[in-house]
Amino acid sequence: MVPAGGAGTRLWPLSRSGHPKFLRDLTGGGRSLLQSTHDRLAPLAADRFVVVTGTRHRDAVAAQLPDVDDTWIIAEPSARDSMAAIGVAAAILERHDPDAVMGSFAADHVITRSEVFEAAVASAVAAARDGHLVTIGIEPTFPSSAFGYIQCGDTLEGHDGVCRVEAFVEKPSVDVAEGYLATGAYRWNAGMFVVRPTVLLDLLAEGHPEFAAALRAIAAAPETLAEAWDALPKIALDHAVAEPAADAGRVVVVPAAFGWDDVGDFDSLATLLEDDGTATTTVLGDADLVTAVDTTGLVVPAGGKMVTVVGLDDVVVVDTPDALLVTTRAHAQAVKKLVGALKDAGREDLT
Amino acid sequence: MVPAGGAGTRLWPLSRSGHPKFLRDLTGGGRSLLQSTHDRLAPLAADRFVVVTGTRHRDAVAAQLPDVDDTWIIAEPSARDSMAAIGVAAAILERHDPDAVMGSFAADHVITRSEVFEAAVASAVAAARDGHLVTIGIEPTFPSSAFGYIQCGDTLEGHDGVCRVEAFVEKPSVDVAEGYLATGAYRWNAGMFVVRPTVLLDLLAEGHPEFAAALRAIAAAPETLAEAWDALPKIALDHAVAEPAADAGRVVVVPAAFGWDDVGDFDSLATLLEDDGTATTTVLGDADLVTAVDTTGLVVPAGGKMVTVVGLDDVVVVDTPDALLVTTRAHAQAVKKLVGALKDAGREDLT
Repeated sequence: MVPAGGAGTRLWPLSRSGHPKFLRDLTGGGRSLLQSTHDRLAPLAADRFVVVTGTRHRDAVAAQLPDVDDTWIIAEPSARDSMAAIGVAAAILERHDPDAVMGSFAADHVITRSEVFEAAVASAVAAARDGHLVTIGIEPTFPSSAFGYIQCGDTLEGHDGVCRVEAFVEKPSVDVAEGYLATGAYRWNAGMFVVRPTVLLDLLAEGHPEFAAALRAIAAAPETLAEAWDALPKIALDHAVAEPAADAGRVVVVPAAFGWDDVGDFDSLATLLEDDGTATTTVLGDADLVTAVDTTGLVVPAGGKMVTVVGLDDVVVVDTPDALLVTTRAHAQAVKKLVGALKDAGREDLT
Repeated sequence: MVPAGGAGTRLWPLSRSGHPKFLRDLTGGGRSLLQSTHDRLAPLAADRFVVVTGTRHRDAVAAQLPDVDDTWIIAEPSARDSMAAIGVAAAILERHDPDAVMGSFAADHVITRSEVFEAAVASAVAAARDGHLVTIGIEPTFPSSAFGYIQCGDTLEGHDGVCRVEAFVEKPSVDVAEGYLATGAYRWNAGMFVVRPTVLLDLLAEGHPEFAAALRAIAAAPETLAEAWDALPKIALDHAVAEPAADAGRVVVVPAAFGWDDVGDFDSLATLLEDDGTATTTVLGDADLVTAVDTTGLVVPAGGKMVTVVGLDDVVVVDTPDALLVTTRAHAQAVKKLVGALKDAGREDLT
């Protein structure tokens, strides 16, 4: 299952509330992030491919994924965070096949070296069949302060290369992250979970029995979803289930070293797209629309017109038909502030 | 007379070969540079207001200056530099009134403190009536390496505050310019000349007799202009007349301290437009179309859409419907290279 949500405001103006990041082709490969996620996962899904997305994006998701049966594109009337989105899919899958194993993977991440990813998923499925809540932990390539980390503990008996999770830790400072990397025991938390739906819902029921019951009730009577939805708690799966379960020693992690990027902002996107780290201008889109002189950085000529840049390093220029962004890679996180400023100025139409 | 030429490539994409700088409102006051030039000079012109411009701009000039008689908008079939443009106006004015005094002022400069300018012109006219070739020298406000300088010599007898020109000097280095300013004897050469047409043409005839004769022949039979034009020498008035005449002690200068800007590039434009030198974002155009965070510099939202900038200092962003420029004030001169690169890439349609 794929929770397809999140506005991706730090990728504005490419990502908009009405046309979010996961619907966008951000790699120039001709497929949106959602489509690439589908292409990567569909061969691994023996049975169902489920997407949970906002009501306003339902039609766009269906149009981008013609192979996915409409019944399995679940529309959330409002955003209730990841526990509700993943939980409702789990409840529906549980009714469909009580022995199923499900995986949950974000719609808007980029993954490379897919054979390594597939091997990790296979290990995770094996551990999930044995009743564990399994996460996949990415081998960190630098001490990022933008991601949460997973601390690996003892090896899980009978599952080569799978460890118990000591703890999930929140985004650290770079200094703390450097310490994590030095130990070799920490992995990036990419929010990937593989688990039997029944195990997930039973774990949820331990701390939030009414929440689990509500999800199972929706699965039993799907026509009640719209009415029941807004009463569901707004909480992340990490807080509702994964962290308490890890504290109880009931979560395991498959460490893996595939390429992973959450494309969180334009700095991340620039790193993802640059060929080899050499100082040039990276273009996402039609290179004939960009003329750059003495410039490094990322240029996105999505407005259909000529974009020229002279004498700027690590610049980010994103042209679209109705809005232009000019910033630097170092200020990539501040784009979020800008979107807030536009809203404050009454320009929600642009966000 | 106003020679209205020059592509203003360093102000691309605001200035285009088909819609050059002088036809643009670059101050946000609602009048183009040409119109402002007309507004400033028309009250000083007792008789005729003459514009010499390229054939392709003739109609646009006429449309912008409805008060100017079409007869006095002279179309150059090709660009032959300033001596031909100013010389043909001089020859025509000479036939019209042998005792006339003419002034020549560029179409694309910005002048403030116009009462000081008017007083300087009055002094220049008085000296020109006495048969001198008169230039107006602007008091330098900083050691610019972008302008030529006029070295002032002895005072001209009978004309308070008017000096003989020792020499015209080419654009110096900043170091040399600093030395000029320290002497107090140097003024910026803004290419402003006041002179009796007969004096100008006679001075030209000393070094270039055939050129002067050709200009007078065109004035005698204006219908021959198109045919005769391309054979005229391509030379600046400074080289053809002003410099040799200065060497012969026959040029005088009226030093004056009005505000003057040739709006040569976006750095110059930013200085011109910023209110008080404080670090903010200056907008030329509709301020509602600009959202800037932690940014200083110049933003021109001429494309009609929202322009957002985050975290850049001294940036220049110029959005137009078919081309976007992003650069810095320090790279303002390099915009010319960019226009060359666009031509090389076969995009003359954008230049």
